[in-house]
Amino acid sequence: MTEADAVLAANLEFYRAFTARDAVAMERLWARRRPVACTHPGWAPLLDREAVIESWRNILANADSPTVACHDEEVFLYGEVAIVICEEDLPGNVLTATNVFAREDGAWRMVHHQSGPVFQRRAETRRPPPGRLN
Amino acid sequence: MTEADAVLAANLEFYRAFTARDAVAMERLWARRRPVACTHPGWAPLLDREAVIESWRNILANADSPTVACHDEEVFLYGEVAIVICEEDLPGNVLTATNVFAREDGAWRMVHHQSGPVFQRRAETRRPPPGRLN
Repeated sequence: MTEADAVLAANLEFYRAFTARDAVAMERLWARRRPVACTHPGWAPLLDREAVIESWRNILANADSPTVACHDEEVFLYGEVAIVICEEDLPGNVLTATNVFAREDGAWRMVHHQSGPVFQRRAETRRPPPGRLN
Repeated sequence: MTEADAVLAANLEFYRAFTARDAVAMERLWARRRPVACTHPGWAPLLDREAVIESWRNILANADSPTVACHDEEVFLYGEVAIVICEEDLPGNVLTATNVFAREDGAWRMVHHQSGPVFQRRAETRRPPPGRLN
């Protein structure tokens, strides 16, 4: 398994725990000795582990919380730290996320998550392919 | 200057370049040999340096682009990588940003930026202070 695969596996575990409402797995995924933070969509940032874990407990305990499917993951490696940027599909809503992981005890643990709405889809932001006139 | 101060200085340079419409300084700030990405508010993510720099050139060349004031910065250090989470005040709008920096050639260079709207302010998300009943 490459480093990128290991990071993607941790990212998938985040969305699995979210959709399965698995608060134990969610807490396990977040780093214990590295500083952590989390910016839920529309929220002000939560800046310590206690606040982050409490927010996830509340979200996962809420029967109205949506399920989330993740796709178009892109991994960016910086040694002991990695970023995954991915799209989050919720019922009737598309978000884009920055998920930051750091190595801790030989595993990739989450240290930061921010997601927010996408109003302008990727296809609309891309330039025309090379060779196309105007 | 501590590492946290050096990261904060790089973060301030980002907002200075933004508000001064200084495209040269903005390009200089983004890492050259590390992978970079950028998620502007409401946009799909831009996943390579060329697309990121082009987006900033367009934003900074646009006379209608807002000025941005940054405050409430919090620095999170992970060795060669650092995250700054801060609030961005635009005229009539508040955003929250994740700015990721990595060491390159002895300097802190930007490798990722995501900002998005805040609908729920920090004061509303905080719990009551210890000792307060209910």
